[in-house]
Amino acid sequence: MHNVHPLPQYLITRYHGWKATAYAENSAWYRRLADDGQRPRAMVISCCDSRVHVTSIFGADSGEFFIHRNIANLVPPHAPDGQQHGTSAAVEYAVASLRVAHLIVMGHTNCGGVAGCHAMCSGHAPELEEKSSFVGRWMDILRPGYERVKELPEDQQVRALEREAVMVSIENLMTFPFVKAAVESGELSLHGLVHDIREGTLWQAENGGKRWVLV
Amino acid sequence: MHNVHPLPQYLITRYHGWKATAYAENSAWYRRLADDGQRPRAMVISCCDSRVHVTSIFGADSGEFFIHRNIANLVPPHAPDGQQHGTSAAVEYAVASLRVAHLIVMGHTNCGGVAGCHAMCSGHAPELEEKSSFVGRWMDILRPGYERVKELPEDQQVRALEREAVMVSIENLMTFPFVKAAVESGELSLHGLVHDIREGTLWQAENGGKRWVLV
Amino acid sequence: MHNVHPLPQYLITRYHGWKATAYAENSAWYRRLADDGQRPRAMVISCCDSRVHVTSIFGADSGEFFIHRNIANLVPPHAPDGQQHGTSAAVEYAVASLRVAHLIVMGHTNCGGVAGCHAMCSGHAPELEEKSSFVGRWMDILRPGYERVKELPEDQQVRALEREAVMVSIENLMTFPFVKAAVESGELSLHGLVHDIREGTLWQAENGGKRWVLV
Amino acid sequence: MHNVHPLPQYLITRYHGWKATAYAENSAWYRRLADDGQRPRAMVISCCDSRVHVTSIFGADSGEFFIHRNIANLVPPHAPDGQQHGTSAAVEYAVASLRVAHLIVMGHTNCGGVAGCHAMCSGHAPELEEKSSFVGRWMDILRPGYERVKELPEDQQVRALEREAVMVSIENLMTFPFVKAAVESGELSLHGLVHDIREGTLWQAENGGKRWVLV
Repeated sequence: MHNVHPLPQYLITRYHGWKATAYAENSAWYRRLADDGQRPRAMVISCCDSRVHVTSIFGADSGEFFIHRNIANLVPPHAPDGQQHGTSAAVEYAVASLRVAHLIVMGHTNCGGVAGCHAMCSGHAPELEEKSSFVGRWMDILRPGYERVKELPEDQQVRALEREAVMVSIENLMTFPFVKAAVESGELSLHGLVHDIREGTLWQAENGGKRWVLV
Repeated sequence: MHNVHPLPQYLITRYHGWKATAYAENSAWYRRLADDGQRPRAMVISCCDSRVHVTSIFGADSGEFFIHRNIANLVPPHAPDGQQHGTSAAVEYAVASLRVAHLIVMGHTNCGGVAGCHAMCSGHAPELEEKSSFVGRWMDILRPGYERVKELPEDQQVRALEREAVMVSIENLMTFPFVKAAVESGELSLHGLVHDIREGTLWQAENGGKRWVLV
Repeated sequence: MHNVHPLPQYLITRYHGWKATAYAENSAWYRRLADDGQRPRAMVISCCDSRVHVTSIFGADSGEFFIHRNIANLVPPHAPDGQQHGTSAAVEYAVASLRVAHLIVMGHTNCGGVAGCHAMCSGHAPELEEKSSFVGRWMDILRPGYERVKELPEDQQVRALEREAVMVSIENLMTFPFVKAAVESGELSLHGLVHDIREGTLWQAENGGKRWVLV
Repeated sequence: MHNVHPLPQYLITRYHGWKATAYAENSAWYRRLADDGQRPRAMVISCCDSRVHVTSIFGADSGEFFIHRNIANLVPPHAPDGQQHGTSAAVEYAVASLRVAHLIVMGHTNCGGVAGCHAMCSGHAPELEEKSSFVGRWMDILRPGYERVKELPEDQQVRALEREAVMVSIENLMTFPFVKAAVESGELSLHGLVHDIREGTLWQAENGGKRWVLV
């Protein structure tokens, strides 16, 4: 296969800079992380979006957060059907193996996935309804959220659906027996956030997502 | 549902620090990112592992990388079966909608997912073979890689399998028609990397993964 | 000497966050603290352990607590032998110069120093008996406490020794003439606490440590 | 012994607030910290001064920093004489047992201990020269630093001596064989800081303390 290319030079250059500074000055820590394994305190599920990096917002360094990123920070319901569920695998590894103490679902404003879901569910994106659309089928996870926002004034629906992307995921997380057990035993706590890219603000779910407050 | 908790205070404190510095000093850029949408140059597929943050290694800022993170940085083969494929959705969105120019698959050493796959395929982890194991089923994607390393001396197998996790993913990427088309037209280039946590080094696949060289 | 390195970047980032928030919003107070000097109400002697920060537990702000932290929150007996006694110097400064009104000794559960002392005194850690072991020699301070717990059922000894680490220290504090005088004149009161990391509880010594009650 | 008193009510009240909030919301994390033990990334040696809390400045949570605090953040030279050396015990425990990757010595401006040392060394505090003065004997550790600043203009001497309190400690740290070995093998890096209480700034030693730069 002749399909792999060398990295663009600017990335090589930056990598060498990182190696000579951040790595060189902290090599003892990286060695310990390699030898002793990771012991992250929290798992974060956030969006692939290039504008939202949770490590920046929370000043996190190597070893702190176990991070799964997918389109629209969605978690599907528990489905032990023997199929490949990448998100479920990540949650299982974090909760059952690493035993993280926190699981944070962080959505964001201006989410392309959520906007696509809204267009699809409101009949404006037939191409996403096709069986072959991976984005469409993935956003099906959020359909129950659309049902809860579709009666709102139209200009509020997308914003509300961004919050539903967090709450639907948290509801689905609770359908995993190992998540439910860890939550009920007090070993794990769940957190729901939406980051506003434009304003730099952070909204936090309260009362099961019925209220959202600024952090 | 009463399952959402407030964030730990130390994360709130750090967030406010970010808001008052990184955000405040760059709010014009965040506003443009929000209003104009993202236009990332590259997609990165990397592992959830808390010790490997691609934004650090490549000094990436908001807006540069569209990042999908899952266990062991795996991409399943193209399967337009109407099921939920989170990784495929992320790839579709990045390549077909955002039209990124680079798609980088970055693996790493000391990967718990790869070690689990090796244990499973070599008969030492029967619990991962069970239908209900999400991690096991997810790591099935890497079975073809195990077949290629199982004849190596035993102490080289896991290291080789970490590289296979990258190459199997790149091979699977080429089964997606829109990826293949973009690669063949020259709009997209694929890159395979393995990051060594302990040494801080970066290995790059050459010649279709037959050779790996230090960057 | 070329032995000093720059701080890891994540600490620099977090520091700038603190400067832009906590400091910026309270700079008048920090200026007064700098210009007028400290006037703490209490001295706290607690352990170095990374899991026990007395400022968090008591919501303390800058200026409130004068804090000495050493292994196992120990105070040696008064020994004006001209040698270097860091703990005694801290106590002298707090009581004789700053004239704090409270002196709190706070131990904690799961203390590595106490566990080491128990192992040493019960003959299971010969390496700590060596003259060159700084931890061993430091834990010698707690030997009188071991004598008082060694007849208890074995599974209660370590827990009891954690409390003895507090009471031995308080007894030793009373051998300092300036402490004794301040206590007897009513200018200073002593307090003994043990913090349970797992349960988040706080136990308080009563009746000279003969009884411990939940706060 | 009737020398222990109940805590002042305001501290009890604050503690109950902490228990109902920070602890309650993070009890899973505290349980893990108790059951799995601490694995701090860094040791910090700082002053007892009530105005300087390193956990605040660096947004650190439970489990991150192993903290020794004494008068003027001093480390005596290695002296395996079988005496009680609390600071040496803390350093030994952090470096040899916990294997921290960073050791940060953080001094500060307006340090009463440093000012006392300057007064003593310049002949203005005969009471500190007495054998029975614990503060005086402790500050003897900084005498070599005074020798290096005594020729400076008088109004610069105390400020320079605050920096020497950091550098003398780092030099003394290097006399401990286990520190030296860890530094030379790259397992441990040393850092020297001075925090300016009034300005909220942070100065960092470069080039072995010959230059100090703002972080």
